[in-house]
Amino acid sequence: MARNKHPEETVNLILDVAFRLIMEKGYEHTSIQDIIAHLGGLSKGAIYHHFKSKEDILVAVIDRITSESNQMLAEIRDRSDLNGNEKLKAIFRESITRPVQNDIFTAAPDFHNNPKLLFSLLHDTIENAAPNYILPIIEQGISDGSIQTEYPKQLAELILLAANVWMNPMIFDSTEEESYCKFMVFRQMLQGFGLDIVDDEILVRLQELTSIYQKSKQ
Amino acid sequence: MARNKHPEETVNLILDVAFRLIMEKGYEHTSIQDIIAHLGGLSKGAIYHHFKSKEDILVAVIDRITSESNQMLAEIRDRSDLNGNEKLKAIFRESITRPVQNDIFTAAPDFHNNPKLLFSLLHDTIENAAPNYILPIIEQGISDGSIQTEYPKQLAELILLAANVWMNPMIFDSTEEESYCKFMVFRQMLQGFGLDIVDDEILVRLQELTSIYQKSKQ
Repeated sequence: MARNKHPEETVNLILDVAFRLIMEKGYEHTSIQDIIAHLGGLSKGAIYHHFKSKEDILVAVIDRITSESNQMLAEIRDRSDLNGNEKLKAIFRESITRPVQNDIFTAAPDFHNNPKLLFSLLHDTIENAAPNYILPIIEQGISDGSIQTEYPKQLAELILLAANVWMNPMIFDSTEEESYCKFMVFRQMLQGFGLDIVDDEILVRLQELTSIYQKSKQ
Repeated sequence: MARNKHPEETVNLILDVAFRLIMEKGYEHTSIQDIIAHLGGLSKGAIYHHFKSKEDILVAVIDRITSESNQMLAEIRDRSDLNGNEKLKAIFRESITRPVQNDIFTAAPDFHNNPKLLFSLLHDTIENAAPNYILPIIEQGISDGSIQTEYPKQLAELILLAANVWMNPMIFDSTEEESYCKFMVFRQMLQGFGLDIVDDEILVRLQELTSIYQKSKQ
């Protein structure tokens, strides 16, 4: 490969390849050598110019996925045409319909073998996504009358923990039928808080993702 | 120390010391040498007679705590004088009032530095405690009319995930006020499922545990 004049393109290329390999083989079984082998001639030195270690690459891969997701969350949070309840619904739908989800679920990464990924997801959920994106929306919903709660911060955390962690088949293995049941319990939980953000279209999509994941795992 | 004729006592002694040190210093900062230094003359050979590695000791420590907790859960599950709703309430109260909880919260272990402990807790919650203890109780509650749900397995998981993981100040740092808010949201969630298992006595005890933890951390 010719020497790249645009270092950010090199970085993105490394992250694309690393993401795919980590998804396919798991972090533990992906070596720097594997990544190089899939970079069409980029040297080991070129990688180490940008990343100190394999762990550095993993952190950058996760940062990039998180930042894409945060951008989507921010766009919906900042819309002026929706009330709080509608924004929550939009976020939930958008989260599961983004095309990247098909890639992730097809790659079927196994969080059981990757405590670091799980840890990172859990903490990003509670310490970043909940307070920075879901909380302001719930606060807006309290103001505009579309959401009723006295504890917006904690409600934001509980909803995201259930959606991102518990309902995630990559973390807790579920059959399609079990996914459906989780989804119904999640819907009932939200209704208990007066929230109506889950509809049949979302249900169909969730089952689709679970099905993609189950087929890919085999 | 004299040679112990009862190997199970030696094992228990090693686990007592290891538990305390891991709680105080964290797993990463506890060495086999530390454990030996607190065993009053037991040799390195004696430890390695029972455990292959430090990780082996950690696994045994966690197994012992889990098995004590499971025994309590089984006793309540198997009582014949309570309906399903009352059993859930008894389990919740018993879980937070056991004296060992004061020790654990005083020791204030930091799960942030210990992905393995977190991983183990998360999986024990969903794969052991929920299906083996909470699920049969919810099923009893459906039969005796004290609990209404179409999805007992998933409800069991969601309740325990919230209680064991989200409301656990060792996993997600919370001030006393935040703990109170989480608790109120948890109560509201349970009420949404028609469950009334949380009362003011439990609330006071939860705040007490959070307070013990916050003071110990300083």
